Amino acid sequence: MGYQVAIVGATGAVGTEMIKMLEQSQLPVDGIRLLSSSRSAGKVLTFKGQEVVVEETTEQSFEGIDIALFSAGGSTSAKFAPHAVKAGAVVVDNTSYYRQHDQVPLVVPEVNAHALDNHQGIIACPNCSTIQMMIALEPIRQKWGLERIIVSTYQAVSGAGAQAIEETKNQLRQVLFEGKNPTDLTADILPCGGDKRHYPIAFNALPQIDVFTDNDYTYEEMKMTKETKKIMADDTIKVSATCVRIPVLSGHSESVYLETKEVADIAAVKQAIADFPGAILEDDPSQQIYPQAIKAVGKRETFVGRIRKDLDIANGIHLWVVSDNLLKGAAWNSIQIAESLHERGLVRPSQDLIF
Amino acid sequence: MGYQVAIVGATGAVGTEMIKMLEQSQLPVDGIRLLSSSRSAGKVLTFKGQEVVVEETTEQSFEGIDIALFSAGGSTSAKFAPHAVKAGAVVVDNTSYYRQHDQVPLVVPEVNAHALDNHQGIIACPNCSTIQMMIALEPIRQKWGLERIIVSTYQAVSGAGAQAIEETKNQLRQVLFEGKNPTDLTADILPCGGDKRHYPIAFNALPQIDVFTDNDYTYEEMKMTKETKKIMADDTIKVSATCVRIPVLSGHSESVYLETKEVADIAAVKQAIADFPGAILEDDPSQQIYPQAIKAVGKRETFVGRIRKDLDIANGIHLWVVSDNLLKGAAWNSIQIAESLHERGLVRPSQDLIF
Repeated sequence: MGYQVAIVGATGAVGTEMIKMLEQSQLPVDGIRLLSSSRSAGKVLTFKGQEVVVEETTEQSFEGIDIALFSAGGSTSAKFAPHAVKAGAVVVDNTSYYRQHDQVPLVVPEVNAHALDNHQGIIACPNCSTIQMMIALEPIRQKWGLERIIVSTYQAVSGAGAQAIEETKNQLRQVLFEGKNPTDLTADILPCGGDKRHYPIAFNALPQIDVFTDNDYTYEEMKMTKETKKIMADDTIKVSATCVRIPVLSGHSESVYLETKEVADIAAVKQAIADFPGAILEDDPSQQIYPQAIKAVGKRETFVGRIRKDLDIANGIHLWVVSDNLLKGAAWNSIQIAESLHERGLVRPSQDLIF
Repeated sequence: MGYQVAIVGATGAVGTEMIKMLEQSQLPVDGIRLLSSSRSAGKVLTFKGQEVVVEETTEQSFEGIDIALFSAGGSTSAKFAPHAVKAGAVVVDNTSYYRQHDQVPLVVPEVNAHALDNHQGIIACPNCSTIQMMIALEPIRQKWGLERIIVSTYQAVSGAGAQAIEETKNQLRQVLFEGKNPTDLTADILPCGGDKRHYPIAFNALPQIDVFTDNDYTYEEMKMTKETKKIMADDTIKVSATCVRIPVLSGHSESVYLETKEVADIAAVKQAIADFPGAILEDDPSQQIYPQAIKAVGKRETFVGRIRKDLDIANGIHLWVVSDNLLKGAAWNSIQIAESLHERGLVRPSQDLIF
């Protein structure tokens, strides 16, 4: 009665969290197939106490699969997701490849699970930095409307994968134990694997995540702009982002300024956030209570605090949003999408669909 | 023909940088007196190759002193600065104690050296996070006017003193070598020495610098608001800040959004910043050139990059500002004030002054 589930990219930073989240999920799972590149094939992982040998992803990997969770980079999704759909699976894709496709719902279940209803076989999971901002802002949008957003992020290195975590730790060790100057460190991964130059992240803040686009914003920044509009189904919301990597292993933080359409009472905003599924209000300046990256690690919720009026603008509000970028920002949101598909009866063979 | 200079707080993180900056300054110095608390008195430091024994600060410490540089906390300035003025010295105070005093000029020399002209014996050096923002924004204000500023900071631990640097390193060592979980670390200093609770900074981002005020902004955030208005001599500029400590040893970074009064051309904004004294333009996305904290350490300039138009607001501009918080943010700006006083003939015994 349960599903056959495949995880593509099972050995990566997000993939390993997907396995854990799936183990804890209420989704009925009868069998699991763990897929990877040829390099990682043959590794043995466990799912609910059973050993599972990781297999190389091929066009034939998806026979008999009901749900395929992809998190192995955009090119892997581009190559294999259509084969998964043709084999009868529903794809939940955690890469950016399909996010802006007209026929692909981009879903944060607490915000727009209804967008799943007419899916064509592929559903996209938004970017980590967008997801947590949506959880913080949707309760505000529902009650007072959203006019604009200005966000500056404080993003963890795990967002760039397991190799970026190792690079960060190695650099810190070289400074703390070999006495190296941070400017003398070498870097191979950050700010982003696909770009020409690499810079040390140890004791640094790098205002570049993903490569630059033509308008001098990075792709990461443009993801926050475009994905917000799509998830909230409102092209008129103004969003400009500055995305910054800092030497934190996991847990993204965001300093968000927003303007509502109608002036909101701050106590009511706090209550709306506290009442919203997936959001936890952590906001008491008198007790120094506010969200912190290290405390969010391992949690599925999004934590919101430092909520206060702008000093001059009546409809302006500032807040601080923190979540585990590998969980709500990726693995957990993907599993939640699968759960929502199940609850809505939308895990079905893809007949006459576009992919 | 030179001056007798005293440095109060000479053994601290800023004080030791003040000694270095004074050694490299063109200010004519005939003698130096290094002052501290009783705890650090007796230490031996060097100035221009000469050994100097640090003395305890007393009311009599300023006899014969022409320029007294204070950086030992607000209470020390409150207690001793008036004695220094009475003894005939001009005080350059790097604490927040006198910054909002009506009769105390608050000076970033490149921006408002003219405010020194009617000093009453005490000049205040602004907060580190304000100073570097002023260097980046004054060239814009001069040409297009400034309507509002929204700033999110990425501040280094050295801003909280030498003990905060040690605390950060120790915490990182415990995680990297003893395998401790960051949430199990103990903390005694950060987010700020004077508050009730302390949190780990290793692999974390703490949205609190200084204690909270009644409006749920921190004092650090309110410093940025109030000091900007005073330095730019314009109470109508709207400024709201979110100040955040990150695990960087030195070098503050800032994500600044601003709206000009008149719409500005981005190329002209870049040129204005490049032309401004103390500012260095580092802005070429095609070559991944932008300011970085680790590269700013040891430099006196303020580095500005990621300059781009807001995606929706015609007069909105985003930029990234980095500077060494101990140098331009404190020690170097204080020495520059002393140099400006000298150049303007304003180092003089304080007769009939209010302090």
